Amino acid sequence: MSLKLIILGCHSATPRENAHPTSQYLEINNHYFLIDCGEGTQRQMRKYKVGFTKINHIFISHLHGDHFYGLVGLLSTFGILNRERDLHVFGPKGIKEATLVMMRTSQSHAKYKIIFHELLSKKSELIFEDEKISVKTIPLKHRIYTNGYLFTEKQKPLKLHFDNINNYEEIDKADYLNIKAGKDIHLPTGEIIPNSELTLKAKKPISYAFCSDTAYKPDIVPIIKNADLLYHEATFLSDREDLANKTKHSTAKQAAKIAKEANVGKLLIGHYSGRYKDISEFKKEAKEVFLNSEVTEAGEVFSID
Amino acid sequence: MSLKLIILGCHSATPRENAHPTSQYLEINNHYFLIDCGEGTQRQMRKYKVGFTKINHIFISHLHGDHFYGLVGLLSTFGILNRERDLHVFGPKGIKEATLVMMRTSQSHAKYKIIFHELLSKKSELIFEDEKISVKTIPLKHRIYTNGYLFTEKQKPLKLHFDNINNYEEIDKADYLNIKAGKDIHLPTGEIIPNSELTLKAKKPISYAFCSDTAYKPDIVPIIKNADLLYHEATFLSDREDLANKTKHSTAKQAAKIAKEANVGKLLIGHYSGRYKDISEFKKEAKEVFLNSEVTEAGEVFSID
Repeated sequence: MSLKLIILGCHSATPRENAHPTSQYLEINNHYFLIDCGEGTQRQMRKYKVGFTKINHIFISHLHGDHFYGLVGLLSTFGILNRERDLHVFGPKGIKEATLVMMRTSQSHAKYKIIFHELLSKKSELIFEDEKISVKTIPLKHRIYTNGYLFTEKQKPLKLHFDNINNYEEIDKADYLNIKAGKDIHLPTGEIIPNSELTLKAKKPISYAFCSDTAYKPDIVPIIKNADLLYHEATFLSDREDLANKTKHSTAKQAAKIAKEANVGKLLIGHYSGRYKDISEFKKEAKEVFLNSEVTEAGEVFSID
Repeated sequence: MSLKLIILGCHSATPRENAHPTSQYLEINNHYFLIDCGEGTQRQMRKYKVGFTKINHIFISHLHGDHFYGLVGLLSTFGILNRERDLHVFGPKGIKEATLVMMRTSQSHAKYKIIFHELLSKKSELIFEDEKISVKTIPLKHRIYTNGYLFTEKQKPLKLHFDNINNYEEIDKADYLNIKAGKDIHLPTGEIIPNSELTLKAKKPISYAFCSDTAYKPDIVPIIKNADLLYHEATFLSDREDLANKTKHSTAKQAAKIAKEANVGKLLIGHYSGRYKDISEFKKEAKEVFLNSEVTEAGEVFSID
C-alpha cells in the first residue's frame, strides 16, 4: 500500500512561464489517476515522465479553464498514440459535450472509448470502486459546480500468521477462511485461540483528499477526516480574505483550519494567485494553524509508504 | 515599413517539453497578429514577452488541435485581463461553435466582443484590408480544410521631394496632390518635369506568407510570388516522402522547391515530426534547393526593415 503524488501544476488562472494551472498525477495502490487538467498538462506530464498509457481514469473538479482546458489536447494525443484501452473521465455535467464538440471539430479520431461520468449531485457520493480503491466526491463551494475527490485504499484482508498457526495441530486448512475473516478459533479441547494471535495485520489503508477550488467550507471535514494527505487550495493569504470570500476561494489560514479540524496527516496547498510573488508566505501562514503544512511546486513528488 | 516575426512554437502534433505546437506572432506595418494557436501558446507569449493587449486579429490555418487548442485559453485569459477591445478571429467554419461551447461550459465571461470570420472558400480571397495591410488566404492541401495567409503591406504614397520641388518657383502647393498621385508637371513654359524628379520613392512593401499544414502544392506559387519571407511547413525529410504524401504534409525539399519557384526572399521551415531528433537536417536538405533557408525554433525572431 503506497501513494505517490506528482504536482504537474499548482497555480491559479492564467498560465505564465513558470506558473502552470492545476493538475496532479496520483499513483495509489496500483491505480494511476490524473486529477484536473489545465492547459499544458500533457507537456508537464512529458516533462515529469508521467506515463501516458497507464492512466485509465481522469477526475476533473470543475470546468473553469485552468482545471480543464488541457483535457481535449490530452485525449487527442492518446488518439495519436493509438491508445485502445477505455478511458474514464469523471467531471461536472457539460464536460462531455464540450470535449466531444472540440474533438469533432478537430477531427480527432480516437480508436479508444471515452466513458464520461458526469456528476450532478451536491452530496458526497461514491463514484468509483474496485477491490483496491474507492473514490468519493467532496462537494465544494465555488462560483461553478465543483467537487473535490477522496481516494481511499481498501483495507487489505488479514494475513495468516503461520508461525503461530503451526503451533496448533488442531487447526486445519479448512479453518483458514474463518481466520482470514477475523474469527477466533475454538479448538476441540475447548480452548479459544484469539484471531489476533493467528493473523498479521495488513498495513493501514492510505487516503488522499483533493480539494480545489473552494471557499472555506468546514462541512467537508467529516468526509476527509483523518486523511493521510490533503491538498487544499489557498489562492490568497489572509490579507485578502475579502477577495477570497468574493471569488469563492480560500486563504492559507482557512486551508490549514480545515486540515486541523480533519486531523489529516499532512496538508499541501496550491492554486496561488498571481499577485503573490513569494509563495513561502503561504507556508508560513498555514503552519501557524497546522504545523505539517507544505506549499507545492510543479515537479514536486509526495510519497507515503 | 517593417516586419518582425516571433516563433512561439514550430513542432508538430503532440506537445513535448521543448516542442511547442504551431504559433507565431507577427508585427507588420504597425499591426499585431497572432497566427495559429496550439495548446500552450499563451504561456509561450508570456515567455517571449508578446503583449496580450496589442493583438486584435488572430488567424487560424486549420482546426487540428496542434494549431487551435490554445485559442480558448487565450480568449479566456483576455477576459480575465478585462479586455474591452473587439477581437477578430479568422479560421475555418466550425471554429466559432467549438470555441463558444468551450467558453460557455467554463463560464468564461468576456466583456469584449469576439468577431469570428469563418472561412469556406477553396480559392484565395481577400479577408482583411485597411490602409496599411491586406491579408489574403492561401488555399492549402491537408487532411482537413486549411488556409495559409499572405500578409502584405500597402504601398505607401509617394513623398514630395522638396529639395527638387523648391527649384521650380512655378510649382504651387495646389500641385502637390497631383505630384503625390504620380503625375508629371507641365510648367507654363511648356517644360515637363517628370514625376520621378519631384518625388521620393516609398520603401518597397513587405510581404509574409505563412503556409502550414500542407502537402506539396505548387499551385500556391502565383499567390506567394516574390514574398519577402515564406514560412512553409516541412514535417518530414525526403526519406519519408511516402509518409508526407500519405499524411498530406511536405518534406524540407518540397518546401524549398516552393520557395525557389516563388522566388521568395527567405524560407523558414518548421512543423518537424517528433521522429527527427536533429532538425539541422531539415536546413541541410532545404538549402540544397533554396540557399536562403532557415529552420525555426521557439523564441527566434526574424526581422525585415
